[in-house]
Formats: sequence, structure tokens, C-alpha cells
Amino acid sequence: MSDTSPLARVEAFSDGIFAIAATLLVLEIRVPALGADAQPGELVRQLANLWPSYLAFVISFGSILVAWVNHHNAIRMLQRSSKVFLYANGFLLMAITFIPFPTAVLARYIDTRFAAVATTFYAGYSLLTSIAFSLWVVAMDHPAHLLKPAITRAHYTKLRNQTLGGLLVYLFTVIVSWRFPVVGLLVISVLWILWALMSIGAASEQ
Amino acid sequence: MSDTSPLARVEAFSDGIFAIAATLLVLEIRVPALGADAQPGELVRQLANLWPSYLAFVISFGSILVAWVNHHNAIRMLQRSSKVFLYANGFLLMAITFIPFPTAVLARYIDTRFAAVATTFYAGYSLLTSIAFSLWVVAMDHPAHLLKPAITRAHYTKLRNQTLGGLLVYLFTVIVSWRFPVVGLLVISVLWILWALMSIGAASEQ
Amino acid sequence: MSDTSPLARVEAFSDGIFAIAATLLVLEIRVPALGADAQPGELVRQLANLWPSYLAFVISFGSILVAWVNHHNAIRMLQRSSKVFLYANGFLLMAITFIPFPTAVLARYIDTRFAAVATTFYAGYSLLTSIAFSLWVVAMDHPAHLLKPAITRAHYTKLRNQTLGGLLVYLFTVIVSWRFPVVGLLVISVLWILWALMSIGAASEQ
Amino acid sequence: MSDTSPLARVEAFSDGIFAIAATLLVLEIRVPALGADAQPGELVRQLANLWPSYLAFVISFGSILVAWVNHHNAIRMLQRSSKVFLYANGFLLMAITFIPFPTAVLARYIDTRFAAVATTFYAGYSLLTSIAFSLWVVAMDHPAHLLKPAITRAHYTKLRNQTLGGLLVYLFTVIVSWRFPVVGLLVISVLWILWALMSIGAASEQ
Repeated sequence: MSDTSPLARVEAFSDGIFAIAATLLVLEIRVPALGADAQPGELVRQLANLWPSYLAFVISFGSILVAWVNHHNAIRMLQRSSKVFLYANGFLLMAITFIPFPTAVLARYIDTRFAAVATTFYAGYSLLTSIAFSLWVVAMDHPAHLLKPAITRAHYTKLRNQTLGGLLVYLFTVIVSWRFPVVGLLVISVLWILWALMSIGAASEQ
Repeated sequence: MSDTSPLARVEAFSDGIFAIAATLLVLEIRVPALGADAQPGELVRQLANLWPSYLAFVISFGSILVAWVNHHNAIRMLQRSSKVFLYANGFLLMAITFIPFPTAVLARYIDTRFAAVATTFYAGYSLLTSIAFSLWVVAMDHPAHLLKPAITRAHYTKLRNQTLGGLLVYLFTVIVSWRFPVVGLLVISVLWILWALMSIGAASEQ
Repeated sequence: MSDTSPLARVEAFSDGIFAIAATLLVLEIRVPALGADAQPGELVRQLANLWPSYLAFVISFGSILVAWVNHHNAIRMLQRSSKVFLYANGFLLMAITFIPFPTAVLARYIDTRFAAVATTFYAGYSLLTSIAFSLWVVAMDHPAHLLKPAITRAHYTKLRNQTLGGLLVYLFTVIVSWRFPVVGLLVISVLWILWALMSIGAASEQ
Repeated sequence: MSDTSPLARVEAFSDGIFAIAATLLVLEIRVPALGADAQPGELVRQLANLWPSYLAFVISFGSILVAWVNHHNAIRMLQRSSKVFLYANGFLLMAITFIPFPTAVLARYIDTRFAAVATTFYAGYSLLTSIAFSLWVVAMDHPAHLLKPAITRAHYTKLRNQTLGGLLVYLFTVIVSWRFPVVGLLVISVLWILWALMSIGAASEQ
């Protein structure tokens, strides 16, 4: 009991951070301002023109949700915590907390001639988050006795390899986004759905 | 115990999202700016002129509160979770998280000649939330063994039919709002109170 | 166990609302903008000039903290929940959630010639919160069997009378603020400290 | 059980405040606005120019995280709560909640000729937080029977002395920042890492 208690509070604190970061995304979307002589149809057009904001919101919310599910499933493999793990968790939470900013940059510039810069910035930040998640997964095994005895080495290795594989995909996305922002955006949009399907698979195995 | 534990964390995460979305609504209300030569009475007038913001705040807070009570009552019918249910829950939370934006649009344009567009946008978004809630309720029964044995089929069917009935009411509100924004607004204002009374009824049966 | 479980989730949801409302207060304080030719000392002066924002932050944070402690102590007198109590709790949470707005109005206009309007608005809103809290306390006894058997009638009556007494004090503050904003502000500043001392007294009796 | 229950809710409420304060930091970072004739490279430059915002975010997030770990470890030394401790905890939470504001001031003016004022303001606010933390640690021992019997006097005294030592370091940082803002900033940046290492050491002893 005294062993699981610290993890319970780490989980609760992490859940709070994930939930708040996901919810703050909406604050970046501004109500359109209309001129004094605008027609009613103008508000329809302006609301439709906010599609980059809606898209960026959906992508980032989805990413945070999937990251939460992965965090939630993976932390249940642990029986105790360690110094290194706690600070790896803190670094991961910092990375998650910052997501509203690249999201706002993407939303603001995705349909302008700055699309390549904005998409690369977002993809680059996703890569950083992916690195933070990889470090977190590596820290789960340092020292080795953090994992529950029931977790086989093969199970942990599979999680670690999936995570490092994801890192390579994000690296690829950064490179592609610079030349072909539309392709980069497509990969980013699809990737968290793929991650979701993978995390579902992992959950059903447990 | 290991069965209820996953649901407990899903409930806690969902509670966090509901609470934050409800609380962020206030950030959309701006302090009035007064000119250098304004009379003290001008601040009274400006604060009174913010009534659309107050009204939109009350409607949206009420809607989120009722959605939370419904979510809270319905999830207690489950004994375990599934892949499909988890992602239906994620989609519902995304819909809830976005509510501050249509609320801000409604508050900004409700007393202008853009009222029809703003009310229809808000009603349309309420319809989307209603669809997300319906999908969530349907997912509670896929696969069927998620429901606790003590929950009768009639009980679940009643919840599902109420939810789908609500969906039709929101569809109707969208259509009405476009032609008669005042009527649409009235329906929206009253609807969450009706939902509250219905959810109270459901809670007392349990 | 099935009796206390609903109250536990109501407490957790309420805690979330209180915590977020208290934390959002800081977002209303803006970093001063300086002209291109400003001297370094100008930033010192501007930061000092923000004292109304600091004061309003401290008053509102203190009020929310005391309201949380009171809510926390009072809800422990209950053994179960009811329809009426749940919605009285929802109304109280809505009142708490809105506090950042009157706080921002107070901070913006407290040292201008709009001080009377701003202080009265803040005091008036505090009165509304006080009414919501009174309704909540009354709802604790409807129906009567919500209270734990160990809670004596005298104990509950004392809480209710304190709450209704507070309501009268806020009503007085509203009236005073309109004529003497400085006095009104002083009462507001001191009142939550008095409430804190009273709630401490109540806690030590339990 | 009835003894630990009050502390559990104080911990949960405190966790919420820490998590939200850490997450709100990102809202102070604004998306750069570009002129109509800006080159794509201009967005790269503007995003790079936001380094003071990124740095301030990392320093403040790190500080809040370390404060949370320290709070979390220290509160586990208690077996019950008291009036004085509850209000010392409230004061500490108020100090934490305000951190986004000095962070925004630091981010805005760190690379301008107002650097000395901004860094001193931030260091001064860190000193205030340090005082709040010291009062909180002192309150843990008032009255003395709050501490768990298993906690030796030497253990508590060490925590108190570390906290008071930290207070002196922050006082020194305030003085240095006024004359040498770069040195002050360096100390601030490094200090929470030192605190993190110290708190890790304390945790491993338990």
C-alpha cells in the first residue's frame, strides 16, 4: 500500500496536467470581429474560415488524448517509482503542457504562405514530445525492479520499440513538412489515429 | 477491483475535463473599456450591456453541468470498459471541451443583426454534442457485457431512447434558429433545464 | 459504501471547480506595455501601479479559499445526496466560477472615478454568491435525512444562521459601497478573513 | 481513517492548484503577428525571438514541479492537520497561483533594457514564494503532534533548515539581479535544478 500510494498521486497529478492542456486548446480560437457594414453572411464565411483553428484543435486534442491513454496504460506496468522516473515524468508533462502554443502557430499560419514553417514547427514540437515520451519509457526500466513482476520483458520491449519507432516517424514528418507542408499535415493528422489504434491493441492484450 | 480501477481513472479524467470546460467560460467575458471622458453611469450601462455574455455563460455552464450529471449517472451502469467505449468517451470530451467557443460567438453576436447566424451556430454545435453523447450511450452496449448485470435492458433502452430523442430536439432547434433566432434561443435556454429535470428523474429511480 | 460514493464524486468535481476558479484569477492581470523611450524606472512604477490587480487577486483568492474550506467542512455533515442538493451545489459552483469577472472589473476601476460602481458591482456579486451558499446550506436539510445522525440539530442550525448572517453583512456592504467605496472595499477585504476565522472555529469543534 | 481523510482532500486540492498553475504558463506566450509583406523566413526568426518566453516557461514550470514534489514529500510527514497549517497551506497555494504573472513579466522584458527590473521582480517573487514555503514548513510543527510519530525530530529539522537556507539564497538572488541581471537569471535557472536534486535526495531517504 505504501508502495502504490506515491504512484497514485503521480497519476492524479499527470491526469490533471493532461486534462488541462487538452482543455486550454480552445482558448486559442478567437471569435471573428466583423466590420460595422458586414452582411449576416459574412459571419458564416468567417466562421468557416476558421477551419485551420478547428483542424489544429482536433489534431492536438486527439494527440493529447492518445498520449494520456498511452501514459495511463504504461504506468500500470509499474509497481513503484524512482528518482529518474519522477523527473522523466515531469519532463513529459512539461512537453504536454506546451502543446497549445505550436497548435496556435499551426492554426494561425496553416493556410498562408508560412504553411511550411508552421507545419515544420508543429511537427518538430511533436518530435520533441515523442523524445520526452521515449525517455519516460526508458526511465520505466531504470532501475529494472520498477516493473511489476507480472510484466514480461517481451511486453516492455514491445512498448519501448513502438515508442522509438514513433520517434522515427516524427523525424520523417519534420523533414517532409519543410518541403511538402500538405503531406506533413496529412501525416500529423493521421498519426495520432494510428497511435490510438496501436494503444487500443496494447490495452486489449493486458 | 482490477475491473473498476480503469473506469475510476476514466471518470476522474472526464470530471477534470468537464470542470475545466465549465470554468473557462468566464474567460470569454471581457471587462468593458471606457473612454477618458465617460461618466460613472457609463460603467453601469456597459456592465448591463454585457447581458448576452451573462446569458451565454449561464446557458453553457448549465449545459455542461447537466451533461456531467448525465455522464456521471450513466457511467455507473457499467462494470467495465472497452476500446470502442474509451474512444467514444474521448470524442464526447472533445465536444465538451470546445463549448467555450460557440458560447463566445453567441455572446458576441446575439444582440446584433448576426443573431440568426450566431444562434444557429450555437444550436448546431449543441446538436454535434448531442450526437457525441448518443454515440457514447450506444458504445456503452458494445460489446453488451459492459453493463452491470443488475442493469435491466429496459433501463438501458430508456436512457438510449431519451438520448436519441434529445438529438431530434436539437435538430429541430437548429432549423428554427435560422428563421426565428429568438425562439431558438428560448428553446436552448430551456432545454438544459428540461434535461436536468429528466436526469433527476433517472437518478431517483436508481 | 454505495451511499458515500455519489458524494465523493460531487466533492471531487466541486474541488476541481474551486481550484480552477482560484487559479484563473491571475490571467486577468496583464503585463504592462512600455513605450519605446521609457526609462527602466518606468517598469518599476507600472508594476507598482498594478496594486489594484494584486489586491483584487488576494481578496478573490482568499474568498474562494474560505468558500472551499466552508464547503469542505459542511459537506462532511451529510450522509447522502438528493436532487435538490445536487442542483443547489451546481448553482453554487456556477456562482464561484464567475468570480474572476467581477474581480477583473474591481481591479480595472478601483482607483478611477468609477470606484463606486466597481466596488458595488463586486459587493453585489459577493451578495449573490452568499445567496447561493445560503440556498446550498438550506438544501442540506431537504429532505432532513441527508444529515448524518451524529450531527445535532443545534450544530446544523448554527451553520445555517451563520450563513444567513453573512448574507445580511453582504447586503450592508452593497449599500455602503455605493456611497463610500473605500469603506465598502475595506469591509470586503476584511470579511473573508473573518469568515476564515469563523470556519476555523467551526472546524475545531468537529 | 477520519484523521487522514482531511489531509487527503487538502492534498487533492493542492495538487489541482499546482497542476493548473503549471499549465496556465503557456497561455502567456503569444503567436507572433506578421506583416502582410513578410517573407517565410520572418516566421522562423520571430519564433526564435520568443526564446525569452520559452526560457521563462521552462524555469517556472520547473519551479512549480519541484515545489509540488517538495510539498508532496513533506505533507506525507504529517498525521493530521491544524487550523494554522490549513491557512499556511492556503497562503502557499496563493503564492504558487500567482507565478504566471512574474513569469510573463520576465519573458516580456528579459532581452530589453528593462532586464534588471524584470529579473529582480521575478527573483523577488521567488523570494516571496520561498517565504510562503518556509511558513508552511514551520506550520507543520504547530502544534507539534501533527507530525507522524515515525518522523524523527532530526528529519523535520533538516527539512526546515533546508527551506530556510533556500530563503537566504533567494534573498541573495534578488540583490544580485538588480546589479547583474544575467547572473541573477543564471542563479534562478539553476536553482530549481539544485532544489530538484535536493528533494530527490530527501525522497530516497524516506
